[in-house]
Amino acid sequence: MENKIATPHSGSPPVVVVGGGFGGLSCARALAGSGVQVTLIDRKNHHLFQPLLYQVATAALSPADIAIPIRSILSDAANVEVLMGEVVAVDHHERCVILEDGQRIPYGILVLAVGSAYNYFGHPEWQDVATSLKTIGDARRIRARLLRSFEEAERCNDIARRSRLMTSVVIGGGPTGVEMAGTIIELARHTLRRDFRHIDPSHARVVLVEAGRRLLGALPEKCSSYALQTLRKKGVEVHLGTTVKEIDETGIRTETTEIAAATVIWAAGIRANPAAQWLGVEPDRSGRIAVAPDLSVPGRPDIYVVGDAAQFDAGGHPLPALAQVAQQQGRWLGRHLRTGRPPSAFVFRNRGDTAVIGRDAAVYAFRSWSFTGRLAWFLWSLVHIVLLIDFEKRVLVSFQWLWRYITSSRGARLID
Amino acid sequence: MENKIATPHSGSPPVVVVGGGFGGLSCARALAGSGVQVTLIDRKNHHLFQPLLYQVATAALSPADIAIPIRSILSDAANVEVLMGEVVAVDHHERCVILEDGQRIPYGILVLAVGSAYNYFGHPEWQDVATSLKTIGDARRIRARLLRSFEEAERCNDIARRSRLMTSVVIGGGPTGVEMAGTIIELARHTLRRDFRHIDPSHARVVLVEAGRRLLGALPEKCSSYALQTLRKKGVEVHLGTTVKEIDETGIRTETTEIAAATVIWAAGIRANPAAQWLGVEPDRSGRIAVAPDLSVPGRPDIYVVGDAAQFDAGGHPLPALAQVAQQQGRWLGRHLRTGRPPSAFVFRNRGDTAVIGRDAAVYAFRSWSFTGRLAWFLWSLVHIVLLIDFEKRVLVSFQWLWRYITSSRGARLID
Repeated sequence: MENKIATPHSGSPPVVVVGGGFGGLSCARALAGSGVQVTLIDRKNHHLFQPLLYQVATAALSPADIAIPIRSILSDAANVEVLMGEVVAVDHHERCVILEDGQRIPYGILVLAVGSAYNYFGHPEWQDVATSLKTIGDARRIRARLLRSFEEAERCNDIARRSRLMTSVVIGGGPTGVEMAGTIIELARHTLRRDFRHIDPSHARVVLVEAGRRLLGALPEKCSSYALQTLRKKGVEVHLGTTVKEIDETGIRTETTEIAAATVIWAAGIRANPAAQWLGVEPDRSGRIAVAPDLSVPGRPDIYVVGDAAQFDAGGHPLPALAQVAQQQGRWLGRHLRTGRPPSAFVFRNRGDTAVIGRDAAVYAFRSWSFTGRLAWFLWSLVHIVLLIDFEKRVLVSFQWLWRYITSSRGARLID
Repeated sequence: MENKIATPHSGSPPVVVVGGGFGGLSCARALAGSGVQVTLIDRKNHHLFQPLLYQVATAALSPADIAIPIRSILSDAANVEVLMGEVVAVDHHERCVILEDGQRIPYGILVLAVGSAYNYFGHPEWQDVATSLKTIGDARRIRARLLRSFEEAERCNDIARRSRLMTSVVIGGGPTGVEMAGTIIELARHTLRRDFRHIDPSHARVVLVEAGRRLLGALPEKCSSYALQTLRKKGVEVHLGTTVKEIDETGIRTETTEIAAATVIWAAGIRANPAAQWLGVEPDRSGRIAVAPDLSVPGRPDIYVVGDAAQFDAGGHPLPALAQVAQQQGRWLGRHLRTGRPPSAFVFRNRGDTAVIGRDAAVYAFRSWSFTGRLAWFLWSLVHIVLLIDFEKRVLVSFQWLWRYITSSRGARLID
């Protein structure tokens, strides 16, 4: 079995990268301008800046502000081609990927960067009534539901129905759930404050439900308390140690209570997209593929996995499913594939864990330090601008984004 | 029968305005801050800046750039309320409008500003295969179709199919058709130029079909020739004096030729939305309601029509269906309803007729003067900035729009 990373040379099958998210795109970009032929395949035509997707869902940014056409990012790289298509299988004996229409794309090296999706913990039927937040389509559905509920409430004479229309429930107290709850309450209490004549949007009810004993379980205790205090001060009702038992079109039911709500948002757990099936390997509990220190798949020559779909052991525990992990893995792998040197071990450099709680409040944890409030918000935006600049070739556009975020484009409130 | 415009006073039924486009919105804004209660009803939650809709369809602007929430525009006007709903009937005996769920909204004065839709000249089945451009949804569908066709062509090995995927047909040589054809060719030949590896987007074919003998038939001859020359120089194939006989998923057929095309866009004729039925009056050939010099409907006390749905006689010929006509009518009517003075006659002040042909080419006709080229483009943007500022309360935002238009946000190229 070969020790060395084989570098495909001109004329041989390319490096095929499946997925245009943080992992796949940074891998392709690290290979740009090299002698290596690369083919990047994604189901969509755009790279989505997911950390800000909750902003689209709460009508503070619009889809175009956080989506970048993949071709546009890679157009200067003559050795990289982009195909829009869906991979449905991998034939690792014949060394090719198979697309939705049967087309076979041969690979010399395969990089799987397929990401993750939300996990409904054995209740797939909840997906229809509790939208998760993974794609632009999800964000627009949630946004439409929120705004339409206020519009209906404005016309509604039935008190119980009006109350239900003005209630939202967010399930899951990790960063996404905290961000959603914090921005929905801001949408209601600030943005829409003066827009209605029969209802008072500041009476909207936002409920955040978390099964664990604290919010932001992966961050230090200090950040959890700050998030809890801040959300409660903003008016969010936070239920900790609470598990959801039932969800339907009228709302949710927990062990102890029923909440009638027009909008239910699922942010409670993720699961890797099923690349393990393609390779015929056994995934872990979250559907992830265990990888070696060089990100390769044991027993599957010339196949690598990066990002949310990979289970990478870092000193006894797996790396979390974060944008910065995917980006660093993709870039590291791309650089190694470029040089063809013997493989070494990937090392993750944590730039800090962050979560936003509102327009002026965030938490930021780095090693033993925790920051909260405006300083944390500033650090959060630094981290995200760096992530963003990596894909936007021009710093100007990154600041345009920041400008729009700050000035809160009203056009983002479209119901379409 | 009363001569005077009745001004509803506090406690009496309000002025109900149906439609949040240029006509309805400018009427409501002219009444803002008066003692008159106003209720504005629209099916959507946003006002759409239609002159730039073709920019969204060709992926140069995104929906949020040209859509403004109606509530946001009117939030400061305490006497104006906004309802999101669809009017399905008018009971002019009981003096109320009826919404889609049966809710009845009483009016003291009714202003119908329902606008227009595209006219398929007796071929309603063409609507499925030839999208018209009236709403954000239309624009996104066209955009997705254009971009997806290039994506499929990139993966396609069949020459005939590839050629069809890279062909678009625009039907109708008025301003909308000319703008669409000009910007699609720019999308292909400039914006997407370097993004593909297997196809050359500059080989895309754009065909513009017009039944009349010249483009822009409502503008002077000089403008028509300039538009024709400019489009042909950009690479658009223009067929004049040509009527479309058949349209299906494979393309179009005229009297003389067949054109295989993946994208067919209908911009060939408009028809007023059917308010005439609501009132039980006979519409003209285009579905418009004939109005008196004060914009009222003869035989229907306290009912007015503004915009595309009104047929207003100006010196022997009806005013055209233009944004500036609707805006001026709405504003004039609002001011008169505010003061309650005896009615006079509406007079339209033409600020010039314009059409854009590309990023640097436009035509502008005012009285006996015609301008073409960059000067016309500059005048075009002045006219449109004035229209836009009228609804955006801050000049800053209008310039943000202009900035985005010039810098051509890549995010607008989302396929979602």
